[in-house]
Amino acid sequence: MSDIRPVLLVIGLFVAALGATMLIPVLVDWAAEGDAARADMLAFLASSVICMTLGAGMAAGAWGRVETITTRQGFLITTASWVTLVIAAALPLALGEGRLSVTDAFFEAMSGLTTTGSTVVTGLDTRPPGFLIWRSMLQWIGGIGVIIMAIAILPFLSVGGMQLFRLESSDKSDKVLPGADDLAASIFTLYVSMTAACFFLYWLFGMSAFDAVNHAMTTVATGGYSTKDSSFAYFVSAGVARGPIDVVAVVFMILGSLPFGLYILALRGKASAIFSDSQVKFFLSAAVVFTAIIAFRIISTLGYDVSGGIRTAAFNIVSIMTGTGYASANYNAWGPFALGFFFCVMFVGGCAGSTSCGLKIFRLQVAFSAVSVYIQKLSHPHRVTVARYNGRAIDESVFRSVLIFFFIYFTIFATVAVALSLFQLDPVTALSAAGTAIANVGPGLGDVVGPAGNFATLPAGAKWILSAAMLLGRLELFTVLVLFVPSFWVR
Amino acid sequence: MSDIRPVLLVIGLFVAALGATMLIPVLVDWAAEGDAARADMLAFLASSVICMTLGAGMAAGAWGRVETITTRQGFLITTASWVTLVIAAALPLALGEGRLSVTDAFFEAMSGLTTTGSTVVTGLDTRPPGFLIWRSMLQWIGGIGVIIMAIAILPFLSVGGMQLFRLESSDKSDKVLPGADDLAASIFTLYVSMTAACFFLYWLFGMSAFDAVNHAMTTVATGGYSTKDSSFAYFVSAGVARGPIDVVAVVFMILGSLPFGLYILALRGKASAIFSDSQVKFFLSAAVVFTAIIAFRIISTLGYDVSGGIRTAAFNIVSIMTGTGYASANYNAWGPFALGFFFCVMFVGGCAGSTSCGLKIFRLQVAFSAVSVYIQKLSHPHRVTVARYNGRAIDESVFRSVLIFFFIYFTIFATVAVALSLFQLDPVTALSAAGTAIANVGPGLGDVVGPAGNFATLPAGAKWILSAAMLLGRLELFTVLVLFVPSFWVR
Repeated sequence: MSDIRPVLLVIGLFVAALGATMLIPVLVDWAAEGDAARADMLAFLASSVICMTLGAGMAAGAWGRVETITTRQGFLITTASWVTLVIAAALPLALGEGRLSVTDAFFEAMSGLTTTGSTVVTGLDTRPPGFLIWRSMLQWIGGIGVIIMAIAILPFLSVGGMQLFRLESSDKSDKVLPGADDLAASIFTLYVSMTAACFFLYWLFGMSAFDAVNHAMTTVATGGYSTKDSSFAYFVSAGVARGPIDVVAVVFMILGSLPFGLYILALRGKASAIFSDSQVKFFLSAAVVFTAIIAFRIISTLGYDVSGGIRTAAFNIVSIMTGTGYASANYNAWGPFALGFFFCVMFVGGCAGSTSCGLKIFRLQVAFSAVSVYIQKLSHPHRVTVARYNGRAIDESVFRSVLIFFFIYFTIFATVAVALSLFQLDPVTALSAAGTAIANVGPGLGDVVGPAGNFATLPAGAKWILSAAMLLGRLELFTVLVLFVPSFWVR
Repeated sequence: MSDIRPVLLVIGLFVAALGATMLIPVLVDWAAEGDAARADMLAFLASSVICMTLGAGMAAGAWGRVETITTRQGFLITTASWVTLVIAAALPLALGEGRLSVTDAFFEAMSGLTTTGSTVVTGLDTRPPGFLIWRSMLQWIGGIGVIIMAIAILPFLSVGGMQLFRLESSDKSDKVLPGADDLAASIFTLYVSMTAACFFLYWLFGMSAFDAVNHAMTTVATGGYSTKDSSFAYFVSAGVARGPIDVVAVVFMILGSLPFGLYILALRGKASAIFSDSQVKFFLSAAVVFTAIIAFRIISTLGYDVSGGIRTAAFNIVSIMTGTGYASANYNAWGPFALGFFFCVMFVGGCAGSTSCGLKIFRLQVAFSAVSVYIQKLSHPHRVTVARYNGRAIDESVFRSVLIFFFIYFTIFATVAVALSLFQLDPVTALSAAGTAIANVGPGLGDVVGPAGNFATLPAGAKWILSAAMLLGRLELFTVLVLFVPSFWVR
């Protein structure tokens, strides 16, 4: 690698910035009462100082003008900064009142920043507020990071078909980040406003201000961390008016799963851009169809009334499909069909350029196009069929990237599941933990990692494997995998 | 469809021929004693007469010279004749002494002709010999049918990357079956000789002549039907010298999984063709590595001695990987890792142009090539990398076909598993039954459909779904799927 300097510079700045954000939990803990909050505050303060010092030092050492960033530097910056930020984010979790082990702190920070939402923490309801808000902040930061990455970086790295979203004017360049600053600022403003709106509605319909802030951050980020062990189910038993709250959650989980680039277009006057987009139409249709299937099932077999069944189905389907991972009911107990169905929905994900994860809608669309063209060609070999996406012909390289993405996705999924079974996990736990990690969903299935369980009881080795799977899933596999190919390191 | 006549002609001839082969169980039952064998003999005799009459009538009605067969006729002949033969083969099973239900007879015949080996029949040890030999014959006939199909038909239909095996001289033609007669005759002779050798060795090492005939047919066909409820485990407890027998089985299961076209080349003097073939090398290496992993596992955790562990591992790995499906031990009880590992091995399969099924080795090779080229291109977009298979550059259409094959394979697998879960099957049963059917292996995992279980207890709906999955898997998915696309039926 010729020039590692820009890589170090970017990572240093990111770490210092993350250190600065740790001052928020410091303030929140400072405002709270009790020894636990006091101890936690000190941990965040110490971590903040460490991160700001090390980060600033690193950036200062690598200081200098960065003219362009090459493709290879783009890969390295993306993966290395993500891993470094997870380590930095884990620091206060390991030092703080909860005294998480190194493994647990890393897992929790990875699950946070990747917006997965699997947790190894129990007793959330009694944790210091700084600890809780830090988990929510990690997801919120991870969410905006993912959007920026998907819009400004991945299309130029041609990862997994993302070149489909390259802006036309920049097609000729190999360089990343052309004029990303302006776009990033618009998206950031939008993201903050969306979170504020979600907070206001949660608060309006009965959540405490603190719960509303936390859940607003993890809803818009489609992350799924909660301040309650029982997740959204808490807000039923606590007597909070549940109806409006679950509707708010469904709306904002969906908003978080649509392409943020289109919101910007809409705000600049092209409102139709959103609803004429093929990815958005497919996503919304899929959400409606999946909800209808599960609603029908639980109304007909579990005795839900019609409106309760639709609501419960919509909440849990949207939560799993978008990779948020809140649970309002233990769908684990809905029988084998629901179990299998939720398992498949887990992989679907949202739109590219959103906070959601999974395979992503556009990949399913491209793959189905490829299959359709292929089957027609089998019986009519000489007929010319052109597949289109949003009106433009799909390039051969996009087909290939997307199909390879599917192949590697399921190869890694199977490998992770088999590796987990080395730790004596039962098949449902191993399969669903592997799936939920790589798709960045949150809860798995079964008693151990299901919506009513917790990842705490897994062996340490399993937690490290799952952490790696979360990173791979979040960075669209190839951003990480490319670093393990020897030729990457050859100029 | 302009001309259905050749389709009816071929199917008629096939049905009549299958009817003629039913005279073998008639003879076998005739030589046996007891009322059951007598009743069974009559069922086979009646079925034989019905099939020969209807088949010959159909062929006579469609009689005439067939100049060429178009691609679309090729698809139709392949799928329609396979389904028709299953129905014909099920006839004596439903009429005979066992009085299988229509569902069970169809399932058993489908599992036989597709060389899957899943069974709904219990009490094999006491069934009439005609009934047993018919099940073995179905697999043997299915095995040779699959080889001929893979060498003479599928490459010209370009199904799932099979165009890789198109003979070079015929590249310009869309028509199927160029000079297939000669090749088919050589392969048939070889198949018969291989079966005879396997029979002789089984018999030499202690099987009864009848058991040896049956197992020779289902070994070479990598089918897996046995004459014993306990499959190969029987030959341990019956005190038969087991060592040699399981070695013979392993050798012939492997021989059945190598490309038969290469054997013909070898017999014509190019002996090196087999061992320099990339598919063969990959298959044998994978079998050795997988065996080593499982042998290490069962020796270190289950107390097997070294030679016993290697033998048990080799037998069960080769049996599952080749899709044969004999069991010599209940690997279901070997713990979660073995369970997960066997589940993945199930999909691997053997070489194209053999009797084995699954994804097939060459598809894994092509997919891994595609991934390797893709990852290198990510970091070095302007570098030109050519992927080769057996020394020839892999065509873009092959990459695309193979990657689409994987995508549809796992989509169908997931759909079948979810559909099975509608019948309240537990996840391990639903997943492994779906996998074992689509990969044409035989036994699944878990207590219900595992090596120690039986498919008899599944609901009828599940059996029909699994029958469809076996057909799809055996005909490489697209040979069947193409018929469901409206444009197929438009000229």
